[in-house]
Amino acid sequence: MKPISFPVLSVSSSEFDERVRKNVNDCIFCKIIAGQIPACKIYEDADTLVFMDIWPIVKGHALVIPKRHYADIVSSPAEVLAKLIFVAQKIAAAQKRALKADGINIMQSNGRAAGQVVDHIHLHVIPRFNSDGHHWNWKTQKYADGPEMQELGDSISAELNKAGK
Amino acid sequence: MKPISFPVLSVSSSEFDERVRKNVNDCIFCKIIAGQIPACKIYEDADTLVFMDIWPIVKGHALVIPKRHYADIVSSPAEVLAKLIFVAQKIAAAQKRALKADGINIMQSNGRAAGQVVDHIHLHVIPRFNSDGHHWNWKTQKYADGPEMQELGDSISAELNKAGK
Repeated sequence: MKPISFPVLSVSSSEFDERVRKNVNDCIFCKIIAGQIPACKIYEDADTLVFMDIWPIVKGHALVIPKRHYADIVSSPAEVLAKLIFVAQKIAAAQKRALKADGINIMQSNGRAAGQVVDHIHLHVIPRFNSDGHHWNWKTQKYADGPEMQELGDSISAELNKAGK
Repeated sequence: MKPISFPVLSVSSSEFDERVRKNVNDCIFCKIIAGQIPACKIYEDADTLVFMDIWPIVKGHALVIPKRHYADIVSSPAEVLAKLIFVAQKIAAAQKRALKADGINIMQSNGRAAGQVVDHIHLHVIPRFNSDGHHWNWKTQKYADGPEMQELGDSISAELNKAGK
């Protein structure tokens, strides 16, 4: 498989080695990267691996992961996130062509409360078909009349500004 | 709000102007960007806007969009995707701190079959709480015994290789 060109990640090899040492023993995705357990790989380059989810939401469902172990979106360097979404885009386009998918969902979960099961950041790339029968239980809530939404928005914005200083 | 520094997007102003002309009339997100309809904005910079989803899956749910109109992940330039996920990371971190969120989901939908309603690419950043009562209907399927998964994986991989040539 031909590597997708993209700006090189800036984490040093020694940092990578240390992360692998610490995580490969108990992270199932690090074990897949290390070749210690098998996976149906569909793309691989120096810093990214894509393989089929063996428990697909819809058949064709793939997982995009960095080879370096980061737990979630908050702890991943920006260049790792950029690479992940860039590869996810290529996978989405390939799923559309290969499987004649009508749509694509990208899903990324952080923390048990969000449904994250493996603590190695991963993007789900899920082909969707008009007749696939899946639904996301997109059950929306309603803000109270008055300032509820604005107050929550302001509190998030205030934290952004603190972090930006 | 202080802008988050990030490599500048490379789409020219004239291309942007043309897209805005073509889309602002019928795209609700372009209208929000143009200030023609109101939104509860929580972050804005030269090329990105974040505002509260008025129909939240969980209260605090925000949408990250590029100011330039692209329909979906496949049609968006890599630098736009990189910026979107980078800003989504900042929003996720701010939601965790501001709302004491236990987790975060990032969701991105492409095409009606995937649940996309507004055809202007957007990342949902959804705070999650251990007791929020939401579930994603994560109902997995099972591949047939034999080569089914491998064959689907090979077909996606083959399309990736075609595109890479």
